[in-house]
Amino acid sequence: MATRSTIMDTNSFRAEHAAALDEQTRRLTERRQEVLGGSYRLFYRKPVHLVRGQGQYLWDAEGNKYLDMYNNVASIGHAHPAVVDAVHGQMQQLNTHTRYLHERILDYTEELRTTLPEYLTAGDYKAMYMCTGSEANDLAIRVAKAYTGGTGLIATAEAYHGTSELTSSISPALGSGQPIGEHVWLLPAPDSYRTGVKDIGAWFAQKIRDAIAEMTSQGVTFAGFIADSIFSSDGVLPGTYLKEAIDAVHEAGGVFIADEVQPGFARTGEEFWGFACHGVSPDIITMGKPMGNGIPVSGLLARSEVLASFSDTIPYFSTFGGNPVSMAAAQAVLEVIRCEGLQAHALDVGAQALDSFRQLATAHENVGDVRGSGLFIGFELVRDRDTREPARDLALAMLEELRSRGVLTSVAGPHGNVLKLRPPLPFSEQDIPWATQALDESLSVLTR
Amino acid sequence: MATRSTIMDTNSFRAEHAAALDEQTRRLTERRQEVLGGSYRLFYRKPVHLVRGQGQYLWDAEGNKYLDMYNNVASIGHAHPAVVDAVHGQMQQLNTHTRYLHERILDYTEELRTTLPEYLTAGDYKAMYMCTGSEANDLAIRVAKAYTGGTGLIATAEAYHGTSELTSSISPALGSGQPIGEHVWLLPAPDSYRTGVKDIGAWFAQKIRDAIAEMTSQGVTFAGFIADSIFSSDGVLPGTYLKEAIDAVHEAGGVFIADEVQPGFARTGEEFWGFACHGVSPDIITMGKPMGNGIPVSGLLARSEVLASFSDTIPYFSTFGGNPVSMAAAQAVLEVIRCEGLQAHALDVGAQALDSFRQLATAHENVGDVRGSGLFIGFELVRDRDTREPARDLALAMLEELRSRGVLTSVAGPHGNVLKLRPPLPFSEQDIPWATQALDESLSVLTR
Repeated sequence: MATRSTIMDTNSFRAEHAAALDEQTRRLTERRQEVLGGSYRLFYRKPVHLVRGQGQYLWDAEGNKYLDMYNNVASIGHAHPAVVDAVHGQMQQLNTHTRYLHERILDYTEELRTTLPEYLTAGDYKAMYMCTGSEANDLAIRVAKAYTGGTGLIATAEAYHGTSELTSSISPALGSGQPIGEHVWLLPAPDSYRTGVKDIGAWFAQKIRDAIAEMTSQGVTFAGFIADSIFSSDGVLPGTYLKEAIDAVHEAGGVFIADEVQPGFARTGEEFWGFACHGVSPDIITMGKPMGNGIPVSGLLARSEVLASFSDTIPYFSTFGGNPVSMAAAQAVLEVIRCEGLQAHALDVGAQALDSFRQLATAHENVGDVRGSGLFIGFELVRDRDTREPARDLALAMLEELRSRGVLTSVAGPHGNVLKLRPPLPFSEQDIPWATQALDESLSVLTR
Repeated sequence: MATRSTIMDTNSFRAEHAAALDEQTRRLTERRQEVLGGSYRLFYRKPVHLVRGQGQYLWDAEGNKYLDMYNNVASIGHAHPAVVDAVHGQMQQLNTHTRYLHERILDYTEELRTTLPEYLTAGDYKAMYMCTGSEANDLAIRVAKAYTGGTGLIATAEAYHGTSELTSSISPALGSGQPIGEHVWLLPAPDSYRTGVKDIGAWFAQKIRDAIAEMTSQGVTFAGFIADSIFSSDGVLPGTYLKEAIDAVHEAGGVFIADEVQPGFARTGEEFWGFACHGVSPDIITMGKPMGNGIPVSGLLARSEVLASFSDTIPYFSTFGGNPVSMAAAQAVLEVIRCEGLQAHALDVGAQALDSFRQLATAHENVGDVRGSGLFIGFELVRDRDTREPARDLALAMLEELRSRGVLTSVAGPHGNVLKLRPPLPFSEQDIPWATQALDESLSVLTR
């Protein structure tokens, strides 16, 4: 089992950095200290004070412009007018709960089901809505338990699936302070670069089978496997290798939960959904972050039979979930993805960006691996290309250097050495030079 | 221990009611059946198809006007322009997460702390934000466990605190299909009408002490007591009786979580917060529904020392929580409550409404008890005033009769016999006759 890290706590402003700040920024950090809980962390030694966003760009209070290479919530672009208008229009009319009839939740769900890959029978999937990815995953796990009668769960060693008690118990990315659930098996992620394994699909499927065998031998009934199919917090691991593993899950009677909070909504370019790149059939598909472009909306699509096992016995109602305003935002997002051709765009521009970033490996020995799918790119830094020893300190220093060049991003992976390059989807060909040059210069400055 | 009911499932449209519906309404119910999970329930045998709301009024697709006596989410009034404008303005600028600096979360928190009663030291409380009341309570319970090192929780027998795995495990109102947590003690609610107890405060405090003693004798360490101080789902139990119980909680080293999702934000009239009516000091105050008037925003204020025990060891981050748009909505709500004087209004109009509803007891023997605090009123129906036998069927039939007279509400309490009259705060003196007449006529029709 991989060692559990504490990376979520590293790219953070700390009190000792305060002296270097300008008066206004320091005062804001002090006010946060005074009124917010200690869990709040700021990115960067010199935190960014944002006041405006548009498309893939952000501006701070001093008027500095940033290229957003990190935020997949404002996935169709910051302050997209289609979402602004849809929310504004609906808010003026009505915003109430789903125990009254309203068309939007129905129109949206019908539209959402058309995004499922053709090899699935869309009509088999029914929807539930809530407000956050955590809530979607919390319910998905409860449904998996109800359907299987089991409690044994499998996740990956650096997975992140949410902030509720249940979802944080399957989120080792939260660090060693976060207790992992009693019946949770954590597997090393299917990382072909770091393991050196060629057939990573077969390798990972065997890990799944071994875990199921182990829980069975301990008298624990297998409930399911949950994964974000691009393994974002495990270091960004795109590919098409999950089929055998999911077959193993299904053969053992388990539920496969595709956590699409990261790869979903056209980001990978190849497919609308991350799991579809692998050609696998989820029992439950959970969605969140990019779904409403910032309006808190999340949901799940689950096979009717699986969902019924839960809904027949346990009531579930989300006060805000599926309300007309949330649905208006979500409808606008789907429409923009389609009308602006953002999936094809992500595929095209993502490939160009990947090419450009990969070329940095020629000049910079510390670039170990650059991989991606559409506009989700992992840029892995190593101390030595032969040993592949992770260069965590370099990655963290890179974040600060990139920030000073106006490029915002963060790190991922068990060693915190993978830059997670995940811009809003309007990121264009014209932005690639800025991003590439910032990476290039930052590497030069830090490794000269 | 009170019997666990399944009331959340009763005021529902069922397939057998479809034949009586007009074509459009039936088609909408069929589409829901086709695309939404089975957990979705519609109010009323003839579901309401809402298209517009303003203030305390709602309109259906046929243009019928309703008096909303139920929804405390749109608490300052449906489609309030101050919230619409605040959200629209902020959405055009920026909506991103709290790892960048932004003034709104700080301005809001500073403002929110000024609403705490004078007997608390506002500066001792720090804020955390998320999207739903469930998420606020989920975190609050985890904090209580971290602070005390305990697992034993006390809630009331018909409590409702949320939909996550953890919060549903302390929510017996969800019915007998919902498993209650292993270390959860459920106490009968402090209901002086139904128990006939005069000093309900002393009675309830003794129940708390007994529960703590029992868990201690079983080797379970007491973590805390969670209560909505108006005991909404336990039947609406306003009063000033909790002081002794909370003293008992604190004496035993436990945390008191005041779940203000129901009584908070000026509804009770007397005070801004429900717990303040009792003069008690919560360790954690959780808030949700009315906080953003429909925009999904929730939060908690916790004593620094209590919160630190959690935040020092376990990371917590909510992607949407505390974002500029959520905070803009929440700021507008606070401002409207203050500028429109809604707290004093709730006190004044609530008292008039209570008087008016109480007078119905003269003509109608089935009116057992009418009680309230501000604009949160419980209207309890009985078969017989002497035996106080709950009239559950009558209450359910009342909902349908009231609906046909344009008055929307629902039921509460372990016996499902208490009408929960909880209108948006703009409910005015001019609305009292409509509500009173609808109650009067419905009672006449059903009991003649």
